[in-house]
Amino acid sequence: MTYHDPVEPTCPLPKMPGDTVQLAHGGGGRLMQNLIRDVFVRSFGDPLSTHLHDGATWSVSEGTLAFTTDSYVVQPLCFPGGDIGSLAVHGTVNDLAMCGAHPLWLSAGFILEEGLSIAMLQRVVDSMAQAARDAGVSIVTGDTKVVDKGKGDGIFINTAGIGVVPAGVIIGPQRVRPGDAILVSGDLGSHGIAVLSMREGLDFAGNIVSDSAPLHRVVADLLAHNIEIHCLRDLTRGGLASALNEIATAAGVRMSVYERTIPVRDEIQGACEVLGLDPLFVANEGRFVAFIPEAHADQAVAIMRNHDVAKAAMRIGGVIGHESGAVVLKTILGTHRILDLLSGEQLPRIC
Amino acid sequence: MTYHDPVEPTCPLPKMPGDTVQLAHGGGGRLMQNLIRDVFVRSFGDPLSTHLHDGATWSVSEGTLAFTTDSYVVQPLCFPGGDIGSLAVHGTVNDLAMCGAHPLWLSAGFILEEGLSIAMLQRVVDSMAQAARDAGVSIVTGDTKVVDKGKGDGIFINTAGIGVVPAGVIIGPQRVRPGDAILVSGDLGSHGIAVLSMREGLDFAGNIVSDSAPLHRVVADLLAHNIEIHCLRDLTRGGLASALNEIATAAGVRMSVYERTIPVRDEIQGACEVLGLDPLFVANEGRFVAFIPEAHADQAVAIMRNHDVAKAAMRIGGVIGHESGAVVLKTILGTHRILDLLSGEQLPRIC
Repeated sequence: MTYHDPVEPTCPLPKMPGDTVQLAHGGGGRLMQNLIRDVFVRSFGDPLSTHLHDGATWSVSEGTLAFTTDSYVVQPLCFPGGDIGSLAVHGTVNDLAMCGAHPLWLSAGFILEEGLSIAMLQRVVDSMAQAARDAGVSIVTGDTKVVDKGKGDGIFINTAGIGVVPAGVIIGPQRVRPGDAILVSGDLGSHGIAVLSMREGLDFAGNIVSDSAPLHRVVADLLAHNIEIHCLRDLTRGGLASALNEIATAAGVRMSVYERTIPVRDEIQGACEVLGLDPLFVANEGRFVAFIPEAHADQAVAIMRNHDVAKAAMRIGGVIGHESGAVVLKTILGTHRILDLLSGEQLPRIC
Repeated sequence: MTYHDPVEPTCPLPKMPGDTVQLAHGGGGRLMQNLIRDVFVRSFGDPLSTHLHDGATWSVSEGTLAFTTDSYVVQPLCFPGGDIGSLAVHGTVNDLAMCGAHPLWLSAGFILEEGLSIAMLQRVVDSMAQAARDAGVSIVTGDTKVVDKGKGDGIFINTAGIGVVPAGVIIGPQRVRPGDAILVSGDLGSHGIAVLSMREGLDFAGNIVSDSAPLHRVVADLLAHNIEIHCLRDLTRGGLASALNEIATAAGVRMSVYERTIPVRDEIQGACEVLGLDPLFVANEGRFVAFIPEAHADQAVAIMRNHDVAKAAMRIGGVIGHESGAVVLKTILGTHRILDLLSGEQLPRIC
């Protein structure tokens, strides 16, 4: 590991005049219309522009909808493997996927800081549009506000998402029960360490790239194979340990997980040791945990491994009893310890 | 008018310990869980808590949905007649109402600045919950992020909203045509002047209170009386003049409005003169413009006036031709002038 000065990372930015965002870009006048036309409509396309001031409308069939929201405040705005734009698509798509929903529509609300370069905004918006295309979702309505210099931090993005839940699919902590196997969809910690290393100017040997990615196709494939899914949770803020704790508490069950089966790449383990972090608490943006009945667990792992984004899927433990809401980690040394929630967080502004 | 020092207004705050928001409140650990339980669930109730980490799901019948988003960055956080919490409900409810939709569900995404008092947060959340109850909408999913002190400005809120559009209702600029009457739902400028006077420490004689209010019941009543509504637009950033301009451009029509018929209260007119503002460009948060065929216009005004929020509704002009996209104001002096978009804005951070 070597150190260099923490700097705004050198994102590849589109070549364009060196204009910056002004307060007037948020004022409802001609400058705002131009910004919408030149930056947002250019990337998101016409469906957005025709709806921009009212909201989008569309027809639905009878069914179950899922609705979710997340704001994104990650710093720096760009990091190895993504930026705040792609993250804002993946995070909300994944929240919908964790309900078993097929994600369809996103809203995009931007809070821009006066003085932000338009080139950076364009990069983030382009990245968001590309991530939406890749995930098969449409950004159908949007909003832009501008705050004074020093009252924001470049770009904050909120995305809300709507998806359709297939008939008969009920996924949630209330379905978790003793006998369920616990699966993780891949190796842990890359997103948090990638963002932190960029922010702090750390240069770890080995290439640490965020795992940020959409997960809905993996979930859809599990459902298509009639895998009974009791609960899903994406492993964002607080990481695997926090997700397991929340589900154990909500479901009123005790869980046991085996440290040696939890996939953590050597580079991430090494970076965590240097930084004094526990990879089980580090945020991921393309990983989830699944609670699957024992009888379906091996097949579920096999299906997950067919997807690039889940090719390191592993079975890491199981639900072992009804009491207590605790999560027990069996360590590599053979000892047991309780995996508890942290009080606060290891890494601020990681998403 | 008298001047006093611009200060954070003295909002009535709930009596509680003087705790403040920490970065760790956004970290996914126990502190975040406590904040969610003690502040958000306390106000928004259980339906939110059970869905907090996944997203909300519910069944829908076949029909048309509307989806909209807005971020709120108003300063100061509290102002005469409301605060950022009630505003975040009214603004998004009104965006849905302008599609003719019956608003049903809101998401709430908070970006909090480290150091914010929990009492202020609780006040805003309580106000948001009350505004949602009053408007008959449910806040069904949420998210909280915390940014470092000096990287935000107290509280930013994003609300996205979903509503159901009644069968056969199509409202939009594409339906505006020559012969349509132009109606405004009430007197203009109170929201913008109320916020500005609080922010700048101006104390105008007379009681200037924001017009922030939900508008969907007025729209529903017009629809219930089979009033043919061609287009609606709420008069937020940029005010009446900007809304008319946007619609004239989108519809490709020429409009004429009569200054003497446009309702502006004397206190607002006086404040605008002192401040060098034009009330036709000042933001409102409880006013809309409606384009209604001539044959339905008088009945529409009468129906609007049955509602407290629209009791000063007026017919202010009409669509007079297909050419040009221009808006002509016939002034009190008998002269004509073109009402154009401003380049930027008169008042930053008004919503």
